[in-house]
Amino acid sequence: MDKTIYVINPNCLVEVTRGLKASLAPFEWNAGPRIECMTLRDGPPGIQTEQHVESAALLVGRLVADLEQTRGDQVGAYVIACFSDPGLYLARDQTRKPVLGIQECGLLTAMSLGQRVGVIAILKTLMNRHARAYAAAGIASRIAGELPLSLGVAELQDEGTTRARLLEVGRRLRDEYGSEVLVLGCAGMPQYRAWLEDQLAVPVVDPTMAAVAMALGRVLDAG
Amino acid sequence: MDKTIYVINPNCLVEVTRGLKASLAPFEWNAGPRIECMTLRDGPPGIQTEQHVESAALLVGRLVADLEQTRGDQVGAYVIACFSDPGLYLARDQTRKPVLGIQECGLLTAMSLGQRVGVIAILKTLMNRHARAYAAAGIASRIAGELPLSLGVAELQDEGTTRARLLEVGRRLRDEYGSEVLVLGCAGMPQYRAWLEDQLAVPVVDPTMAAVAMALGRVLDAG
Amino acid sequence: MDKTIYVINPNCLVEVTRGLKASLAPFEWNAGPRIECMTLRDGPPGIQTEQHVESAALLVGRLVADLEQTRGDQVGAYVIACFSDPGLYLARDQTRKPVLGIQECGLLTAMSLGQRVGVIAILKTLMNRHARAYAAAGIASRIAGELPLSLGVAELQDEGTTRARLLEVGRRLRDEYGSEVLVLGCAGMPQYRAWLEDQLAVPVVDPTMAAVAMALGRVLDAG
Amino acid sequence: MDKTIYVINPNCLVEVTRGLKASLAPFEWNAGPRIECMTLRDGPPGIQTEQHVESAALLVGRLVADLEQTRGDQVGAYVIACFSDPGLYLARDQTRKPVLGIQECGLLTAMSLGQRVGVIAILKTLMNRHARAYAAAGIASRIAGELPLSLGVAELQDEGTTRARLLEVGRRLRDEYGSEVLVLGCAGMPQYRAWLEDQLAVPVVDPTMAAVAMALGRVLDAG
Amino acid sequence: MDKTIYVINPNCLVEVTRGLKASLAPFEWNAGPRIECMTLRDGPPGIQTEQHVESAALLVGRLVADLEQTRGDQVGAYVIACFSDPGLYLARDQTRKPVLGIQECGLLTAMSLGQRVGVIAILKTLMNRHARAYAAAGIASRIAGELPLSLGVAELQDEGTTRARLLEVGRRLRDEYGSEVLVLGCAGMPQYRAWLEDQLAVPVVDPTMAAVAMALGRVLDAG
Amino acid sequence: MDKTIYVINPNCLVEVTRGLKASLAPFEWNAGPRIECMTLRDGPPGIQTEQHVESAALLVGRLVADLEQTRGDQVGAYVIACFSDPGLYLARDQTRKPVLGIQECGLLTAMSLGQRVGVIAILKTLMNRHARAYAAAGIASRIAGELPLSLGVAELQDEGTTRARLLEVGRRLRDEYGSEVLVLGCAGMPQYRAWLEDQLAVPVVDPTMAAVAMALGRVLDAG
Repeated sequence: MDKTIYVINPNCLVEVTRGLKASLAPFEWNAGPRIECMTLRDGPPGIQTEQHVESAALLVGRLVADLEQTRGDQVGAYVIACFSDPGLYLARDQTRKPVLGIQECGLLTAMSLGQRVGVIAILKTLMNRHARAYAAAGIASRIAGELPLSLGVAELQDEGTTRARLLEVGRRLRDEYGSEVLVLGCAGMPQYRAWLEDQLAVPVVDPTMAAVAMALGRVLDAG
Repeated sequence: MDKTIYVINPNCLVEVTRGLKASLAPFEWNAGPRIECMTLRDGPPGIQTEQHVESAALLVGRLVADLEQTRGDQVGAYVIACFSDPGLYLARDQTRKPVLGIQECGLLTAMSLGQRVGVIAILKTLMNRHARAYAAAGIASRIAGELPLSLGVAELQDEGTTRARLLEVGRRLRDEYGSEVLVLGCAGMPQYRAWLEDQLAVPVVDPTMAAVAMALGRVLDAG
Repeated sequence: MDKTIYVINPNCLVEVTRGLKASLAPFEWNAGPRIECMTLRDGPPGIQTEQHVESAALLVGRLVADLEQTRGDQVGAYVIACFSDPGLYLARDQTRKPVLGIQECGLLTAMSLGQRVGVIAILKTLMNRHARAYAAAGIASRIAGELPLSLGVAELQDEGTTRARLLEVGRRLRDEYGSEVLVLGCAGMPQYRAWLEDQLAVPVVDPTMAAVAMALGRVLDAG
Repeated sequence: MDKTIYVINPNCLVEVTRGLKASLAPFEWNAGPRIECMTLRDGPPGIQTEQHVESAALLVGRLVADLEQTRGDQVGAYVIACFSDPGLYLARDQTRKPVLGIQECGLLTAMSLGQRVGVIAILKTLMNRHARAYAAAGIASRIAGELPLSLGVAELQDEGTTRARLLEVGRRLRDEYGSEVLVLGCAGMPQYRAWLEDQLAVPVVDPTMAAVAMALGRVLDAG
Repeated sequence: MDKTIYVINPNCLVEVTRGLKASLAPFEWNAGPRIECMTLRDGPPGIQTEQHVESAALLVGRLVADLEQTRGDQVGAYVIACFSDPGLYLARDQTRKPVLGIQECGLLTAMSLGQRVGVIAILKTLMNRHARAYAAAGIASRIAGELPLSLGVAELQDEGTTRARLLEVGRRLRDEYGSEVLVLGCAGMPQYRAWLEDQLAVPVVDPTMAAVAMALGRVLDAG
Repeated sequence: MDKTIYVINPNCLVEVTRGLKASLAPFEWNAGPRIECMTLRDGPPGIQTEQHVESAALLVGRLVADLEQTRGDQVGAYVIACFSDPGLYLARDQTRKPVLGIQECGLLTAMSLGQRVGVIAILKTLMNRHARAYAAAGIASRIAGELPLSLGVAELQDEGTTRARLLEVGRRLRDEYGSEVLVLGCAGMPQYRAWLEDQLAVPVVDPTMAAVAMALGRVLDAG
């Protein structure tokens, strides 16, 4: 298979891209589609405000347009690896290949695993944007609740703090909001997924893995 | 990877299972999860009525319970490969592993590719059931329309007739109903997907491929 | 009037059927439709899981098909007397006469008495199924909440325990969830309806009585 | 049984009340609740505009308040027999007994008989009001469509004209709008129900009969 | 500009009308539309029950019909200045000019300022009516919550008590219900708007000012 | 009054800004708030694609941030005068003053004038974006339909062609889609509003006038 799935990290943090690459290793095999993870070099250093989203959006759009021109033949699909899906519709205007957003795919995948979906956001700042997206997608009735970890960049780098908050917030979403499945509302946490699922005994979805699996499905089925 | 994805064809037609197996070939690789397609030997000869769905449901539930007991360790996920998702909730009661229905996954995958989803059903008989399922899943606002091919078993075996009807119905869903993406409402048509997509210039989703991709995502991400 | 309303108890507990028959006595008079309560002899001993629902469904479908053949002329309507409405759509495929489910009729009747409806379930196990049914019926916005009594079979036979829990759960639905009308989520509790209504000062609906009244309406109006 | 169901015709046309009384004959028996049909002597001569609805509303409210005072002990339930449900909420403020509107009950009863409900209105003038009521009741997703007969008072008295239009409009609702069950959107047509049902082979609901059946259920179950 | 916006206070309290007039002073200028505030002399002394609403409705309808006849040429728009919007649809039947209800306009204006809207009602008595109106308008998903001040007429005249309750209820709507914008659910509180907005740091909408601004827009744009 | 309402035209066409300024003349008076119309000099030459919207969004956000810094004291409100509401949420992050989008305000104003709203778009290209916005705002049930004029820039400058298409599309929205009120889906057509309203005999809303009226209401009521 000579097709590539482009996973675009729309912030400029190379470590996030590296983490995605590591987590996606099981999704690649010799004869399968390649998975290429890219960093948006001019992107914002994390996407935490509308300003970040909008500036990333334009860059994502431009990158997809560029890739179409330079490597169009080998593109199988695009994945935008940020939970705000920046530039999703703009990118779709640049290509007829599938452009998948990890928010959208993370939620749709969760909906295949349970009726009531809880979302763990990083910060409160973009939760209104998320809510509008859920309503725009017509899936708001499936969202049991969304709660923020409320952790800054430094705290997120402390694994112990992060685990403690994930547990706390995940438990509330499960027990108080009745969530039957949880979604990690961020591209930077694949390493916690399996652990959190074990702890809470409900399925936990990493949105990037969900999106790449759906991209894989499209590419493999296209022959 | 020592995990298997069990794809259950809930009717007794071995040819359908064989078709699924062939179509799923690209989804298997040496180090990846195995994909095993099973026929429900006592299942109905096609699932076209509520009676078929209900009788298949019980058998699907029993099969999943059996597999859990006999091969529980190696099960990665279950896929119920019939567009009525017979026994979906019953099967979920037998296991904590993912049980995916192809109707649900086909629609959720389509929702990642376009706003307005059109569904091509085989017959009118189960369209009411489908509509109830869309509403129960809270996704009815995304369904642009559903139209039946209205082809009997014999006619479905005639490839020319089938292609002609697929084109006709697909075009109406695209042009009159405004569908931006189509779903094949049946497990038995993977061979027409790419062709129909080419003809109509909108994405066409085969629901079984969609469900197996989502199952693959869960199994690969579970490590 | 030579018509009969068949009230099918889809579990095998003859006492439940007997209780229904007693409660329905006021609904019968000399010149009116007969009401015949039937027990599903091969049915499950109570309907508490998806497995129970699915196995009852097939039997309900078969019974309705049989009654159509053997007593078709005298059938006025069918009532499926279990709050999961097992086999509702399957039964409707067997006949053109009205087939009413007590969940559906209990809720619709409650909706004629108040805006926000609370449901008292027996166990938590089937509450997800109920929620899907409310959404499928497009009436989810009218459900203020659903809470389980969480009583086992033995406890349910203790009248004191049952009354205490009915009061406790009913009060929460009224005061915390804002329910203006309550539905008993079970066929086996007609004897508590009037008492609970008196205690809580909101209308309480017994779903079987509600369904039989609606069946009566159809039969009487058909002349 | 010493209870009475008061069926209030909120217009001043005695013939309409008489027609209701005749149609309700099968709903009465010796030991059962009495059914008393009342004409709102000061009511408008038909309810075709918002002005009619509002003026009837006040009178319905006053009548219910009066009946509560003068015959409170014997009242079992009230039925407001006009498809605009004038004064429904006002009347409910005057009493703790059930006050049922025929629009509400007609639609809820139809929802127990099929998924997609078609409504046959008399005139277009109040269809906007109906639509707001369906949305307020949270049942708009079940309405397949509503079409007016567009017949004036004189034309409605011509039985041939009325039958022709009922057939024409009912067929459109069934065939073009996909209605599986129809509701007569008027209190004055019980005599056409069975005939129209026969002609169109889908259930047809007379809203007054539906409401009285639901009232009967409440009164009988109250013991 | 020779047009007048008629602001109808549908209760008989001249002080309320006087308060509206004072608050609306900034909305008038020499060359602009006149704003005339009218008291419904025969209206109820406050609108706190369905009975009040319905009796005001008829009077509002009649007043609009009268104004159309006597001053039709100079009418620019009508505003019904009571949060129950009594007679809104009846009045619209009397004229082709805009008839705006302050509930509707207050909520729509709030929706332009934030996603989740909280409503401060005076009493609990009409909150069910409000809820039905929100659903009928298809905007229920935007309502974060509605809470009553639960203050009687006498208490409302005590400014200290009123401020204390406004703060208390406003805070709950903001903090517990997540309201991003608040609406005063009453025509009689324009003097508290700016103060409450300052205290709570979320936009607070006075519904009459909102409706008059929208009326002004229609009149000015009509030339 | 020393406050200014800033009306931002997010494209670079000075003529459009000039047209807005002319149409807004009746909204200004000596003692009232000033209305300043600004052109986004670096903005795209018209907003017809996602690319245009996204690039305008960033510029709108920056302009609002600048105005806050340089003229913060005198700002009363901001109006984004493009039917895609580019940068609406980004701008709201820069200020606590009201930021109104003309799409949002145009639709909300239309909702105060009729139940079913029709939208006249310029081109089909952004109609999907509009539909997502309506759903995100929870008002999709009020949209009767949206149809494009499908006129290019040159054709739009031909007044005869534009009028002919406005009439044609407006009539279809009124007669086939049942729209009771229409919204011009573009900032550049205020001169056609009154004429189209006369022709079609349903209210027609210019979205910029609607937004400025709502901005005026906020500024005047703030004292």
